[in-house]
Amino acid sequence: MTVKLGANRYGKAETRLVHVVRQGPVHHVKDISVSTSLSGDMEAVHLTGDNAAVLPTDSQKNTVYAFARRHGVGQIEAFALLLARHFVASQPSIHHARVEIEEYGWNRTGPHSFVRDGGEVRTCVVHHDEDGRSTVVSGLKDLVVLNSTGSEFHGYIVDEYTTLEPTTDRILATAVAAQWRHADAAGSDSASDSASDSASDSASDSASDYAKAYTEVRRCLLDAFADTHSLSLQQTLYAMGERALTACPEICEIRLAMPNKHHFPVDLSPFGLDNDNEVFFAADRPYGLIEGGVLREDAPDAGFAWE
Amino acid sequence: MTVKLGANRYGKAETRLVHVVRQGPVHHVKDISVSTSLSGDMEAVHLTGDNAAVLPTDSQKNTVYAFARRHGVGQIEAFALLLARHFVASQPSIHHARVEIEEYGWNRTGPHSFVRDGGEVRTCVVHHDEDGRSTVVSGLKDLVVLNSTGSEFHGYIVDEYTTLEPTTDRILATAVAAQWRHADAAGSDSASDSASDSASDSASDSASDYAKAYTEVRRCLLDAFADTHSLSLQQTLYAMGERALTACPEICEIRLAMPNKHHFPVDLSPFGLDNDNEVFFAADRPYGLIEGGVLREDAPDAGFAWE
Amino acid sequence: MTVKLGANRYGKAETRLVHVVRQGPVHHVKDISVSTSLSGDMEAVHLTGDNAAVLPTDSQKNTVYAFARRHGVGQIEAFALLLARHFVASQPSIHHARVEIEEYGWNRTGPHSFVRDGGEVRTCVVHHDEDGRSTVVSGLKDLVVLNSTGSEFHGYIVDEYTTLEPTTDRILATAVAAQWRHADAAGSDSASDSASDSASDSASDSASDYAKAYTEVRRCLLDAFADTHSLSLQQTLYAMGERALTACPEICEIRLAMPNKHHFPVDLSPFGLDNDNEVFFAADRPYGLIEGGVLREDAPDAGFAWE
Amino acid sequence: MTVKLGANRYGKAETRLVHVVRQGPVHHVKDISVSTSLSGDMEAVHLTGDNAAVLPTDSQKNTVYAFARRHGVGQIEAFALLLARHFVASQPSIHHARVEIEEYGWNRTGPHSFVRDGGEVRTCVVHHDEDGRSTVVSGLKDLVVLNSTGSEFHGYIVDEYTTLEPTTDRILATAVAAQWRHADAAGSDSASDSASDSASDSASDSASDYAKAYTEVRRCLLDAFADTHSLSLQQTLYAMGERALTACPEICEIRLAMPNKHHFPVDLSPFGLDNDNEVFFAADRPYGLIEGGVLREDAPDAGFAWE
Repeated sequence: MTVKLGANRYGKAETRLVHVVRQGPVHHVKDISVSTSLSGDMEAVHLTGDNAAVLPTDSQKNTVYAFARRHGVGQIEAFALLLARHFVASQPSIHHARVEIEEYGWNRTGPHSFVRDGGEVRTCVVHHDEDGRSTVVSGLKDLVVLNSTGSEFHGYIVDEYTTLEPTTDRILATAVAAQWRHADAAGSDSASDSASDSASDSASDSASDYAKAYTEVRRCLLDAFADTHSLSLQQTLYAMGERALTACPEICEIRLAMPNKHHFPVDLSPFGLDNDNEVFFAADRPYGLIEGGVLREDAPDAGFAWE
Repeated sequence: MTVKLGANRYGKAETRLVHVVRQGPVHHVKDISVSTSLSGDMEAVHLTGDNAAVLPTDSQKNTVYAFARRHGVGQIEAFALLLARHFVASQPSIHHARVEIEEYGWNRTGPHSFVRDGGEVRTCVVHHDEDGRSTVVSGLKDLVVLNSTGSEFHGYIVDEYTTLEPTTDRILATAVAAQWRHADAAGSDSASDSASDSASDSASDSASDYAKAYTEVRRCLLDAFADTHSLSLQQTLYAMGERALTACPEICEIRLAMPNKHHFPVDLSPFGLDNDNEVFFAADRPYGLIEGGVLREDAPDAGFAWE
Repeated sequence: MTVKLGANRYGKAETRLVHVVRQGPVHHVKDISVSTSLSGDMEAVHLTGDNAAVLPTDSQKNTVYAFARRHGVGQIEAFALLLARHFVASQPSIHHARVEIEEYGWNRTGPHSFVRDGGEVRTCVVHHDEDGRSTVVSGLKDLVVLNSTGSEFHGYIVDEYTTLEPTTDRILATAVAAQWRHADAAGSDSASDSASDSASDSASDSASDYAKAYTEVRRCLLDAFADTHSLSLQQTLYAMGERALTACPEICEIRLAMPNKHHFPVDLSPFGLDNDNEVFFAADRPYGLIEGGVLREDAPDAGFAWE
Repeated sequence: MTVKLGANRYGKAETRLVHVVRQGPVHHVKDISVSTSLSGDMEAVHLTGDNAAVLPTDSQKNTVYAFARRHGVGQIEAFALLLARHFVASQPSIHHARVEIEEYGWNRTGPHSFVRDGGEVRTCVVHHDEDGRSTVVSGLKDLVVLNSTGSEFHGYIVDEYTTLEPTTDRILATAVAAQWRHADAAGSDSASDSASDSASDSASDSASDYAKAYTEVRRCLLDAFADTHSLSLQQTLYAMGERALTACPEICEIRLAMPNKHHFPVDLSPFGLDNDNEVFFAADRPYGLIEGGVLREDAPDAGFAWE
């Protein structure tokens, strides 16, 4: 029997970084978690433990901190691109880099005081390959939303295991995880050049685009969830994705994962009480799970964007 | 050897309830988790398994749902009192009830649409005893705050195991858990009578007081955290408690538990970079933990309030 | 702009099932969490909310429970195949099913008494398509292992951000997540026929193979981790995968994800103490993350096995 | 209005320590999490930020690591006592110390190789006061057990909110959290003297007693859970506590917290199937929660042991 090495990558996960920018007495904070993954000439390290091609994960962590000092953090997509391009450009043995960042929000309560915004987490996954291609996927997760009416569910298949009653009024609740792919990877290699100067200046157009797209997509998701009279969570999911793609020409695909967080009306009839969708039990498990993508007809090939 | 039964209680924990109030097309939601604990004549059930004195935890859960339908939820303290008094009043074998409620916030995005407020959780712990005494402790937890400057730490004991360098500028970050005791248990038994009619009407004065106190204490905690130039987290904690007690005459004691969520400046000198409190590593463990209470000189005895 | 529906699937996640088999006074328990995901003719439900092609997730849950009663649970791979084939075979609108199961272990303490084995979780992901193809991936996760010596790390790339010192003796600790693909999907359609009779009888040969492979792979992973004098975690990972493939001819590929759970020797020199790899700080984040696959040269195409 | 400082304490929480003892090629590991809490002359630090009485939490952490090197870890109770006594003895401003330790088990797979025992966590909480008193509470948590029969529940109060049907056969499952108080605090001050020499030598009798008691209590808990034909979880809880006290003369009190992890038989009658306690839904929330203590008639006063 002969065996061989398959796909592989390695890196430092969840490097926690808080970056403070001081504008006189007024401070700004960026709070992120950075995960880097590199791949390349890794046969030797797997087969014999020869580390000559390995940039230590500790060095990757140091690079994250040093780059934050040198370039600022700015939009997480731009910071991730900067890191990914650096690893590929600086190490011949590294052919491909994937950088994933989560950003946690803070709201201002004073010139240098903040309270954690406990809502959704902003995310990105960026790839850069030695062939020059870059991909950027932005996203959010843990955006928990609920409609207390305006949701129906009926007309489904009834098989021998179906006991669910159809309903014309139910709570619809979910925790949205969304990821959207940018048509133009902020970049190509030309942008990469300027990007090596500064994450905030560089590609400053794309950088501000990331912020604008984030705000816009988030608003579309919330609005479409609230606006859509829903006959199924799938319909709501598609409406959310379609709204985002329509509003943001710079994105070409969006993928959504939405648990159906069941809220069951409690049967209060044993206590002589009616319950006209007023009192609900919020269940933990099991839950429905709806996953789906919406993309432009002419979306370019995704390549490694979703890996 | 002879052994005996010690302190005990039993109940249903984490009954998840979402209550929808419909005002025409405009809905309001209350999202809570209720934990009830009863004690009383429980010798027999422990020694022989005779359940004659036991109100099943399943019935306690049902009561929570039925009371939400019958009385509404209103302020969680009032709802908890209603439940606690019911259990003690209705069952001779139950002498004491403890009801704990957590409330999760939602922000409106449409007439019947909401997005989870991922910030702090509002809490209460209420006791009612057959002797007529009630206690009410309100609170919040997971209020995560950060000052990016305005915090020093020096002048401490230096022993043979001390390597910490004094600092005149550091990040101060914590997740506030606060609980405040109401001087007047909203109630005494007279309130209990009206309370049995409706959680929202009943004790409506006290109920609105709970909301007002919550808003006020929260504001005091945030303000004092931001305002206090801190020489130690203990000083900040005390200032937060003192501010709340000063602003809210109806509360007589506040207890705070505040982890010191360490943010360490990263040493960037190996990379030829300075780091003037700009780039920080946010550590998980270990963390400092500061716990302390502030109370009025004339605070009445707490009794079982904190149990 | 025109948009379209992309890849999608939906189902019921984390249906928690405990199955008790009574052999007279002696009982056996199976404790599993089942997640089903279906795909097929789902254009209409996404675009218009027409549910005519949708088998409700509630019915999927019911099917899981009914099948446990009717066929027993047996090996999780066989139970998952049974479910996947049922959904595809019974509903014309469902073209493909994915079933994922986690199994939690229990150790016997009496004829009908058990204590939870808190160690690793056994897993499987099974696919079945209307074209007749099935794939079976078995696995485990949360297998936490540690070598207190026998691990070195040196000879790596040193770049401008490298501060790590080489070492010839360190702790190597990780939480193994492994998934192995079976060359023969237990089945093809002929097995499927018998499988429809009983999860335990049916495909009984394959079913017992799953158990045997699980035991064997787990042993190989533990042994190779303990045996390998490690020059890098990648080397250990490859050795573990190679050992499993060598021992188990029925599997053709294995994928491993292994965090490098860093244990840092504490600098005790300020206290006049040496520390010859005796006292360690076990860090939480960041951590290294090594991901890699090992496969046979002649492994058949994976198809949708890893989706 | 005048306010004052109430009860307070501060310290370093969750210092993660792995201690390796090398006996030639054979290694032994201790994996613990230590939380220290000190109290004393803390008025000034709270009121003015004067840290003169404050031993930094960072120094407490260092002490934990240095003591592990100097004295070994041994039984966690002995190590906790050593630390608690050190803080009180060495700092005039510190009047009282509380040390809490969790220990995570590892099973051997080679001379220096181990696999995490994912079962219960061993715990202790130790207090030492400047007045010379010490208390030791040992424990365990997350010991998850299940009886698939031998449990009944009937004869309970039926009120207007009771819908539960009585049963003579149900699954009884719980996650045991137990804490037992040692009658003799391993110590008094005479032991403290020797303890200051070495955690393993010192009080070596008591140290080995802790290990013996742990093994014995754990066995009693498992056996009593398995042996007791249960008419209520309270009865089982009491039987478990009584068994431990009877077997271990050195402990005088035990406190147990046991969630009733509900397993509901699934109604399969819509599918033409019976379900004679064979197929269960394992629910997450809500759950029953039974808390109770068992103690000797002549148990000495607990003092601050449970704080």
